[in-house]
Amino acid sequence: MNDFQAGRAGKPSTVSARISPIGGLDVLSRHEVARLRGASGSGLHALLRRCALAVLTSGNISDDPRAILEQYPDFDIQVLQQDRGMKIELSNAPAQAFVDGQIIRGINELLVAVVRDIVYVSTQLEQVGFDLDASAALTQSVFEILRNARILKPQVDPNLVVCWGGHSISREEYDYTKLVGYQLGLRGLDICTGCGPGAMKGPMKGATISHAKQRRRHNRYIGITEPGIIAAESPNPIVNHLVIMPDIEKRLEAFVRLGHGIIVFPGGVGTAEEILYLLGILLHPDNASTPFPLIFTGPRQSAAYFEQIDRFLRLSLGDEVARHYQIVVDDPETVARMMIKGLEKVRHNRLDTKDAFFFNWALQIPLEFQQPFRPTHEAMRALQIHRERPRHALAADLRRAFSGIVAGNVKEEGVQAIEQHGPFAIDGDADIMRALDKLLQAFVDQHRMKLPGGTAYVPCYRVLSA
Amino acid sequence: MNDFQAGRAGKPSTVSARISPIGGLDVLSRHEVARLRGASGSGLHALLRRCALAVLTSGNISDDPRAILEQYPDFDIQVLQQDRGMKIELSNAPAQAFVDGQIIRGINELLVAVVRDIVYVSTQLEQVGFDLDASAALTQSVFEILRNARILKPQVDPNLVVCWGGHSISREEYDYTKLVGYQLGLRGLDICTGCGPGAMKGPMKGATISHAKQRRRHNRYIGITEPGIIAAESPNPIVNHLVIMPDIEKRLEAFVRLGHGIIVFPGGVGTAEEILYLLGILLHPDNASTPFPLIFTGPRQSAAYFEQIDRFLRLSLGDEVARHYQIVVDDPETVARMMIKGLEKVRHNRLDTKDAFFFNWALQIPLEFQQPFRPTHEAMRALQIHRERPRHALAADLRRAFSGIVAGNVKEEGVQAIEQHGPFAIDGDADIMRALDKLLQAFVDQHRMKLPGGTAYVPCYRVLSA
Amino acid sequence: MNDFQAGRAGKPSTVSARISPIGGLDVLSRHEVARLRGASGSGLHALLRRCALAVLTSGNISDDPRAILEQYPDFDIQVLQQDRGMKIELSNAPAQAFVDGQIIRGINELLVAVVRDIVYVSTQLEQVGFDLDASAALTQSVFEILRNARILKPQVDPNLVVCWGGHSISREEYDYTKLVGYQLGLRGLDICTGCGPGAMKGPMKGATISHAKQRRRHNRYIGITEPGIIAAESPNPIVNHLVIMPDIEKRLEAFVRLGHGIIVFPGGVGTAEEILYLLGILLHPDNASTPFPLIFTGPRQSAAYFEQIDRFLRLSLGDEVARHYQIVVDDPETVARMMIKGLEKVRHNRLDTKDAFFFNWALQIPLEFQQPFRPTHEAMRALQIHRERPRHALAADLRRAFSGIVAGNVKEEGVQAIEQHGPFAIDGDADIMRALDKLLQAFVDQHRMKLPGGTAYVPCYRVLSA
Amino acid sequence: MNDFQAGRAGKPSTVSARISPIGGLDVLSRHEVARLRGASGSGLHALLRRCALAVLTSGNISDDPRAILEQYPDFDIQVLQQDRGMKIELSNAPAQAFVDGQIIRGINELLVAVVRDIVYVSTQLEQVGFDLDASAALTQSVFEILRNARILKPQVDPNLVVCWGGHSISREEYDYTKLVGYQLGLRGLDICTGCGPGAMKGPMKGATISHAKQRRRHNRYIGITEPGIIAAESPNPIVNHLVIMPDIEKRLEAFVRLGHGIIVFPGGVGTAEEILYLLGILLHPDNASTPFPLIFTGPRQSAAYFEQIDRFLRLSLGDEVARHYQIVVDDPETVARMMIKGLEKVRHNRLDTKDAFFFNWALQIPLEFQQPFRPTHEAMRALQIHRERPRHALAADLRRAFSGIVAGNVKEEGVQAIEQHGPFAIDGDADIMRALDKLLQAFVDQHRMKLPGGTAYVPCYRVLSA
Repeated sequence: MNDFQAGRAGKPSTVSARISPIGGLDVLSRHEVARLRGASGSGLHALLRRCALAVLTSGNISDDPRAILEQYPDFDIQVLQQDRGMKIELSNAPAQAFVDGQIIRGINELLVAVVRDIVYVSTQLEQVGFDLDASAALTQSVFEILRNARILKPQVDPNLVVCWGGHSISREEYDYTKLVGYQLGLRGLDICTGCGPGAMKGPMKGATISHAKQRRRHNRYIGITEPGIIAAESPNPIVNHLVIMPDIEKRLEAFVRLGHGIIVFPGGVGTAEEILYLLGILLHPDNASTPFPLIFTGPRQSAAYFEQIDRFLRLSLGDEVARHYQIVVDDPETVARMMIKGLEKVRHNRLDTKDAFFFNWALQIPLEFQQPFRPTHEAMRALQIHRERPRHALAADLRRAFSGIVAGNVKEEGVQAIEQHGPFAIDGDADIMRALDKLLQAFVDQHRMKLPGGTAYVPCYRVLSA
Repeated sequence: MNDFQAGRAGKPSTVSARISPIGGLDVLSRHEVARLRGASGSGLHALLRRCALAVLTSGNISDDPRAILEQYPDFDIQVLQQDRGMKIELSNAPAQAFVDGQIIRGINELLVAVVRDIVYVSTQLEQVGFDLDASAALTQSVFEILRNARILKPQVDPNLVVCWGGHSISREEYDYTKLVGYQLGLRGLDICTGCGPGAMKGPMKGATISHAKQRRRHNRYIGITEPGIIAAESPNPIVNHLVIMPDIEKRLEAFVRLGHGIIVFPGGVGTAEEILYLLGILLHPDNASTPFPLIFTGPRQSAAYFEQIDRFLRLSLGDEVARHYQIVVDDPETVARMMIKGLEKVRHNRLDTKDAFFFNWALQIPLEFQQPFRPTHEAMRALQIHRERPRHALAADLRRAFSGIVAGNVKEEGVQAIEQHGPFAIDGDADIMRALDKLLQAFVDQHRMKLPGGTAYVPCYRVLSA
Repeated sequence: MNDFQAGRAGKPSTVSARISPIGGLDVLSRHEVARLRGASGSGLHALLRRCALAVLTSGNISDDPRAILEQYPDFDIQVLQQDRGMKIELSNAPAQAFVDGQIIRGINELLVAVVRDIVYVSTQLEQVGFDLDASAALTQSVFEILRNARILKPQVDPNLVVCWGGHSISREEYDYTKLVGYQLGLRGLDICTGCGPGAMKGPMKGATISHAKQRRRHNRYIGITEPGIIAAESPNPIVNHLVIMPDIEKRLEAFVRLGHGIIVFPGGVGTAEEILYLLGILLHPDNASTPFPLIFTGPRQSAAYFEQIDRFLRLSLGDEVARHYQIVVDDPETVARMMIKGLEKVRHNRLDTKDAFFFNWALQIPLEFQQPFRPTHEAMRALQIHRERPRHALAADLRRAFSGIVAGNVKEEGVQAIEQHGPFAIDGDADIMRALDKLLQAFVDQHRMKLPGGTAYVPCYRVLSA
Repeated sequence: MNDFQAGRAGKPSTVSARISPIGGLDVLSRHEVARLRGASGSGLHALLRRCALAVLTSGNISDDPRAILEQYPDFDIQVLQQDRGMKIELSNAPAQAFVDGQIIRGINELLVAVVRDIVYVSTQLEQVGFDLDASAALTQSVFEILRNARILKPQVDPNLVVCWGGHSISREEYDYTKLVGYQLGLRGLDICTGCGPGAMKGPMKGATISHAKQRRRHNRYIGITEPGIIAAESPNPIVNHLVIMPDIEKRLEAFVRLGHGIIVFPGGVGTAEEILYLLGILLHPDNASTPFPLIFTGPRQSAAYFEQIDRFLRLSLGDEVARHYQIVVDDPETVARMMIKGLEKVRHNRLDTKDAFFFNWALQIPLEFQQPFRPTHEAMRALQIHRERPRHALAADLRRAFSGIVAGNVKEEGVQAIEQHGPFAIDGDADIMRALDKLLQAFVDQHRMKLPGGTAYVPCYRVLSA
């Protein structure tokens, strides 16, 4: 059921419509509505237009976010405040969001979420100065955005499973994520993903079927995204709670503070990077006693992916790192049962520590994980990939190295920087760096990382001699 | 996602549990509970046990109803009336109905429906003597059973689409039924089927996904069955309204009085028989002005099925019969749009005639369609397959002939009767009978009708000379 | 807030309207609708018209049921079954049931209840022949009518308090019933009464206020009536569950099987008779272990009423009778607390005996309490008011004697019979009979019993010499 | 039903309890919870304690806010954030808020509102700097507080009636406010008041009964208060939406922006002042085309109150002022019908101007009405009570003069200032000032204004010679 919304050749058909938002948007003030207008010069309108278009093209598959904007050059969105409440006026919107001229209600809800988050972040949040230190203030922001989006539900036992994995995976892998979602849904668990296609969509679809069989009405299919990603990973309308975090780091923090457990499906380099992010946090000594269920799983055909990652993690961070995750091959029911057990531990831990069920305050996320990393030559040279370092610090630098090397091989900006300034100089243990190379080579072989022009993988760095 | 509940070799695992029924079962009286007990001698307990087992093995595929009873010889069910309400006690019930020891809520609801209908039919209905003629009294019974099952919803515009088709169809055909269900669901339509696998399950699954996207909460996935069929076509737990009609004829009447339109997917001989049943009614002069949307549809690969049926219908009943149905090949969206248009006509007609939206009182169903047909040699000889007859009467006899010939070729009882008494003698036009042969031959070729031992199709009747 | 709907002099104003019923009326069949028509000759239409008029004049105070029919000679009601569901067409209906031309929704619901019960009793119930003995069959009928009215709620702990008392009481007594209802409502209890004015309305009004303060949404204000009473004790639209039982005895049985405890407020002779009915049942040896909270209460000014009744009960039935009831003077909070304690006992008893919370199956109600008593001279002579008899039998006969004597003094038919045949001859102990006289005299003095023409009370019987 | 919670002599009984808040409080962050603690030094805890105590003593009648704090010296409240959500811990809280140890749910909800508003005003609102002018920024604050309290409901037609009037009125006047509330409720209107006793409670009680009769479930009984008033006018738990505005002016603005029409019942000088506030706004030329239903009403016995006010208004502001209000004596039904008509005009006006139904953006409220007035000798001398001034400016100064004169006669601070500095010097037309004296004298005669020590009314000002 992947391609219900198959595109057609030629200029895409469009619809213009004025719609009444559903899904609990608070009323907006005249002032807020004015700021969303194109003429206000606040820049909010461009952001609104871009995110709205992503939501309206839900299901489209494209790695190029700009492509969509180019496809719908006349698209516009205006928010009006009228007698009975807010209206959203769409001009030349993608026809695929409509059925016989009526907007799909799920998409209507997602539009509302887009408006809500853009207004909130811009008018409420940016102007608040807290008497908190930098890290606490960032966490408070994450909390406030999620609260404003009504994602934080008190009185609910831990039951939210975050699913990570690639947006562009094989049919077998996609079907497997559906089966895992089905088993999670049978057990009354809710799903949170990055809300794109592939591993972010499959678990929600599977859970939809089992939630229906279990007559579960108030299901949560939470999608967490950010303005730079939403266009490339357009949310599926099964998502019934969408949050647009202001940046990638807040998005990652939202996943780990909101989710009670995480399942990682096969993916590409991005997925590997997320694994290193999470392990970097879990390895921090302050988090030693905080349970956090983490399962890597895929179908039989994808067993190699996690074997390679496991090997790399053990080699670089030591065998002990493996006690933070479990690998399950081709057994959705076992995955679900293990997750249930893990959530039970989370529940007891929160009760013991009187921590909230709905927000993981206890988890220590160091400031360096909350701030963005830009892989310049200087930044790469500052890394220290050495075994004698504290493992959480090593994991953090490994993730950065990984991120930089991927950029140097794949991303336009990174490739140019390498051409211009030569390879990155990295201060690291040679065997770890070799293992990293091997891992990247394997991703290339499995078509999980695409090199420009289909060239062979060549390391874009040199190891500094000790 | 077909085989989530894959069986395992060896003795099947079982669960014993006492469950609290959900889904609006009215309280039972002490007297009613007593009658359901095995010891009461009323025979109701055996019926209850059989239907309950069918519900608990939902998803099992078997053409042999008795097989399930043999697989679970120790299974038992008892209904108890206790302080807080009814309890259902299950002993040695199929484990597949449970998740980690908890019964799936959808199955719980289906069990409740089983108890409800068995109690109602046996204690309320059987004892009522109406001051109505025979046909009206039978219709009243159908009405009362549906009302008691809370299926008849006032204040709802016509939106219930009945889907007919085979329970054992190809993967392509099954996927196609899902796509059609998805398009129906996008447009806010509810689904009613015979509630088995195949074409009875696919539309509900597809609609579940689109209903979720449309945030439709109060969906109706109605399954209508009867005690002889339920075991072979065990209801999927997506079914959230199950009704067990007392016999096949009341089941068919329930379909046409409850549904506002019918979509027929490819199937076997049973499906062809249902088509003849419905056309027999629609061709009746009293029903000439009653709109009834009827669409035959399937994927590209199955186009032949409806071409053959269409050809046979035109030849035997005249080209005009074709104005009662539309054939759509491989276009789910068009099917859904045509159905929407058809329902709009139904709506206007009910408004004009002040007929209920929720029950098609206006449709004339002659007594002979309400009473069972047993294909004995005598009954077959009484048929009159002649073109000069009124077409609705001809359609009725064609359906009987069809039914008898299938029995004579396939069913144990029928085959024996042919062996014993020789071929049926049928009073019919030779060309119609030849066309019928050809249709059956095509079904055999397409594996839609299975002859015992895989033998070739040989007509089991002779045409009486004029 | 008694007289919101104050009548006006002259011909009362009327409204004609077609209304859409609310409140869950099941759809009716064509056949059922036809029987409600005036032309059907079934007599149902006259009954429907009478009950509907009572509901529409809710709040009117009149002891003369016929008066209302005479006031609205052109009133008519027709039930129609149409496209979207049932319609009720009212012609020349009392304007007081409407606000600015719109029917009050509570009255709409009561109309629906009237139609529902009249249809059910006439088409379903009357034709059912149970394989039960006479007493059990009558109880089964009571059960079925209540079930059809959706009054029997499983999964709810015992919380239904029946309030009895006079419909024509003093302002102080009425205000006191409101205060008691307020205290019951604060504690989450639901109210059931005979649904007329006075002591049947006050507790509901008080509970409405406290239920609102407790944010209790799904409150039950149950009114149980019967066709002969409804006109005189027209239901207040706060009543949100109305049941019309077919006769007085089934109404009384409904009270004691449905209610978990009973509070008796001051009333007239009818109230005293109800007390004797209930004590007759509670004194039956089979009911010895069945707890049944019973509280007599009134304001300070009405203390005498229950003192006199208590004295009479002890004298005639022995001091032990008093352990079945508690008398509380002028203390609503204590009444509510005692009731809570009593209900807790009821709950434990039902759990111990696995009896339903929603229907008191355990209570033994002998056939003689289920059948009507007509106080002819013969019937009165057959009574045996002697202390040596079993107390429950004595209570039963006392109630009958009481009923007959009241008729002989007050009711037209009874007074005539006495004039014609002389006083009743009663076989009873002289001191009991004297006590009964004294009680009646007190009622006359307190204006709780009105003698025709305001004459003095004179016994209308003689005691047979031993 | 005024005194259900009658106090008892001696030290009041108390309850300590930890309660789970109901009624939709958003989750709080650790930071917000910390600020509410007594130890935080933010002053919020004292405010929280005071407001919470007011809510917990709902129904107490006292003109002295401090009295309650002195009665419960050990009372404390702490807000905790725990696993399942927020908890509120009460120590030595007034027992009257509990029933058998359980807090009344309505009071629980009010406590939640107190916490919500205190947190929001202190952590969110105070730190926001808008790029708006002063008047618009104040209006935006009012909007945000109401929005955060979920009071602003889109999709609802204008139906909110604000009721003003005295908190200490006669029994007849109180009963009359109930009757008016009953008639408003019958017509589906919601009620908003200052949420104290008397005229602020009666309309809600009456509407509760009629809303129940109309089966209206989602009723709004909105109470708007502020920290200085809440203790003296403790909210009745029928109030299901409580908002604590930060000051008196924002409270008044909330009334006129939120309410779609206003009914004024008899009251004291405060009520007269509110009338002048509202007329000052309605007389502003910018508001000439904005409809605003305003009805003065009371029972027969109170007719004089509005006659005197009417006379004063006409004399001082000209006869035309009277077209802004209607006076109805002793006719609740007419009041309700007139309000319905007025709301219809409001609805059409909002549709025409595309203004929100839920917030009266169009109404021009000049900055001087949004800022507090302190009646010093200087401020009083600055007033200009002259007929040639624009009427809205004159009304504004009249209100200030009125306020100052009341203070000079009644309030401790004002009386002292007069003693010290002599009478206020007011620059005003002599006949207007005389009329004002006459009005105040009438209030004293009717016991609507209490002079210290029961002395006679003596003007506390002198008119400046022209």
